[in-house]
Amino acid sequence: MIVAQLNDFPVAMINFSPFSLLAIAEEKIAQEPENALVLASVLLSLVAIYIASKIGGELCSRINLPPVLGELVGGVIIGVSVLGVLVFPQTGATAEDSLIIAFLERTTDLQPEAAQAVFEAQSEVIIVLSELGVVILLFEIGLESDLKELLRVGPQAAAVAITGVVAPFVAGTGGLYYLFGVPAVPAIFAGAALTATSIGITAKVLAELGRLNSQEGQIIIGAAVIDDVLGIIILAVVASLIKTGNIEVGNILYLVISAAAFLVGTILIGRFLSPFLIGMVKQMNTRGQLLLTALVFAFTLAYIATAIELEAILGAFAAGLVLAETDKRKELEEQVAPVADLVVPVFFVCVGARTDLGVLNPAVPSNREGLILAAFLIVVAIIGKTIAGFTIFGRPDINKLAIGVGLVPRGEVGLVFAGVGSASGALSPATEAAIIVMVILTTFLAPPFLRVVFPEASETETSEQEGT
Amino acid sequence: MIVAQLNDFPVAMINFSPFSLLAIAEEKIAQEPENALVLASVLLSLVAIYIASKIGGELCSRINLPPVLGELVGGVIIGVSVLGVLVFPQTGATAEDSLIIAFLERTTDLQPEAAQAVFEAQSEVIIVLSELGVVILLFEIGLESDLKELLRVGPQAAAVAITGVVAPFVAGTGGLYYLFGVPAVPAIFAGAALTATSIGITAKVLAELGRLNSQEGQIIIGAAVIDDVLGIIILAVVASLIKTGNIEVGNILYLVISAAAFLVGTILIGRFLSPFLIGMVKQMNTRGQLLLTALVFAFTLAYIATAIELEAILGAFAAGLVLAETDKRKELEEQVAPVADLVVPVFFVCVGARTDLGVLNPAVPSNREGLILAAFLIVVAIIGKTIAGFTIFGRPDINKLAIGVGLVPRGEVGLVFAGVGSASGALSPATEAAIIVMVILTTFLAPPFLRVVFPEASETETSEQEGT
Repeated sequence: MIVAQLNDFPVAMINFSPFSLLAIAEEKIAQEPENALVLASVLLSLVAIYIASKIGGELCSRINLPPVLGELVGGVIIGVSVLGVLVFPQTGATAEDSLIIAFLERTTDLQPEAAQAVFEAQSEVIIVLSELGVVILLFEIGLESDLKELLRVGPQAAAVAITGVVAPFVAGTGGLYYLFGVPAVPAIFAGAALTATSIGITAKVLAELGRLNSQEGQIIIGAAVIDDVLGIIILAVVASLIKTGNIEVGNILYLVISAAAFLVGTILIGRFLSPFLIGMVKQMNTRGQLLLTALVFAFTLAYIATAIELEAILGAFAAGLVLAETDKRKELEEQVAPVADLVVPVFFVCVGARTDLGVLNPAVPSNREGLILAAFLIVVAIIGKTIAGFTIFGRPDINKLAIGVGLVPRGEVGLVFAGVGSASGALSPATEAAIIVMVILTTFLAPPFLRVVFPEASETETSEQEGT
Repeated sequence: MIVAQLNDFPVAMINFSPFSLLAIAEEKIAQEPENALVLASVLLSLVAIYIASKIGGELCSRINLPPVLGELVGGVIIGVSVLGVLVFPQTGATAEDSLIIAFLERTTDLQPEAAQAVFEAQSEVIIVLSELGVVILLFEIGLESDLKELLRVGPQAAAVAITGVVAPFVAGTGGLYYLFGVPAVPAIFAGAALTATSIGITAKVLAELGRLNSQEGQIIIGAAVIDDVLGIIILAVVASLIKTGNIEVGNILYLVISAAAFLVGTILIGRFLSPFLIGMVKQMNTRGQLLLTALVFAFTLAYIATAIELEAILGAFAAGLVLAETDKRKELEEQVAPVADLVVPVFFVCVGARTDLGVLNPAVPSNREGLILAAFLIVVAIIGKTIAGFTIFGRPDINKLAIGVGLVPRGEVGLVFAGVGSASGALSPATEAAIIVMVILTTFLAPPFLRVVFPEASETETSEQEGT
């Protein structure tokens, strides 16, 4: 046999038999059967996430509610509360609780003894994808923000924003701590979640009313942008508190200063660096040069923020703000959009999926706590923002109530608080669920409220706007 | 103290002390310190991957070589062979071998005892991202392919393609098995890796020569497209062979038929379904409706392909082919491009990073095997495609040598073979490295070769083309 003779060839492989390497390969596959199946389970998880986010988003958009709410509710439905399609080891689930793993066991050669390893790997990947989702979301928010615009709307917006952040934060945290006996850290977390207005939701509602360019509309948008930045600093501060395990005033001051210094420093250094970055991009001629360069910048700042005990999202937001000032902003926004479409829903659906709404069932006595907390948070959320509108001075012609109500919807950043708080273990299930109910209800209630206090633009006002 | 009194409030939390929940949170964080650090390590890995892919890609593009080569070489440089920035447990690396983990230990509070867990989680996420990269790449290739165009270039291209697939496959597999004593499965894998021409590289070189629309250019592109489809079917067949552990003819036939049936079936059913999908997308009004619907379709087909023991990429390719026939193709291509820019480099850089070029050091006697294998594969790769050009019949006016040489560059699909083969454990390091050296060298050699046998378009030929 020619093969046997050639076995003595000097470069012959260790093993000549055509089937022995096959046996080694089989054994290796038996040890790590996950490889292709982890990918399959991640693909199925993404299919479930995307279907839930789109059905929820489309239904909400049909009834004039923000789509992000639908993504959250879609997550609740496929999550631990209802269907159990998407569950996580962090909430105590095992492979047996996951419908995706059960489905894989029926349709592929996944063996029960390997199921737990596949489940854990899949969960790890989905969690990191959802965290990448917030990073990309905050990068996009930074990119859509405008530092100059922010400064131009001036003192009015700033006064509204600061009152609108301080009032619900103090009332929420103080109320939870002194009235309800909630420990300091979760009380601060819940108070912080009351601070940030959803720019996207507010802008959309204003556009629907034809009021985006009214005086009130401009102040609302300006205040919402400032709100968002304050909310992010607060989030970074609060999240760091948990890590350093200390709520000394000196520590808070250090964190406020380091958050501010990071934001101001990265923006100053970034503005100095960005012409160099953009110049480099213009020299490049391979695919994706702008997007990858921008993300290298954003991910590096996100890493630095993590390394100095802030949050990754703060770095991504600062990177977005810096790149928003370059002449590549428009192009970059267009390229980031599909990436955000892909990873941001993973975050919102996972927040919903991890929320155990069972804690809000009033039939269980121990659950009444979450409901009472939620009711309290909702009242504080609405009153805190509404009074902020009345801090506007020397402008009797302005609809102050409309400005306050315009700032009521919480949306994304509130959910980011719930997600980060839950992931860090600082929030009890009742407090987390109360925050999510608060976000859902403020966002549900704001559009009809705003329609009542801020009727659609009349002809006079429209022409006045045109004159502006 | 008011707080102490309120501790008896009926909804008071289990534990009143403001610091006790903090203690619980700290403990939980101590148990799972990875959370933020896994994200940080993934962000750093992506930064390293993107920098390596862009530097490599840009340098190659400057010297008129395909950028994908640079991504691969960039991966080699940051991988196990050179710097050790990006290493994987699958190649025997531990946290101590990873520069990223070492860097995290110096710059964050990552403790040595938690380092291995962070390293494994990071590797898992990067591997799945790189697998998602191939899935998206093949979806994009499907989307850019054109079934009708494929059929139109007709028998000439088919004859060239089939010869160009069969000749190097038979010569490569047979030669490795009979001459070099390589076992059957890796021999088949290496032979299969010789089959598929890189459409991207070939099209780019032709465009640079101004020959894309010449008769020869059209036949080359047509044959490269057919090649690619055949290569994907061969990849699915070969990869399935490893899983089922059998190389009976009946099994091969079953796989060929099931691959063909899957591709034909999904295309037929998909063409029937796609108007419904596109109609649904047109009814939707939330962000990312087209991209997410398309990816739900692609990921579902990828899952089905995995479930019937084919490869996920075959499903993604079929989904791309189907959606290429709809009127949303252009829009979808634009939205998939940034996503591909983001995940595809992860795949190529990881292929490079996992390649231990140490096996090609000729100073080590046992390494000479890989070098001899590579030399053999390169000769077969060039001759196999070159003779394919001469199968064109009844067209004495055609530059047959140019067609053959035009099909020489292997690129993406060849690397997919190396990656899939390596991940499944079927390829020895020497064989894998030999395949990668073959891909690199055929792609390096083809552009100058083609320039010699196929001079830049003369004026006559240009006007002839215009007349066509």
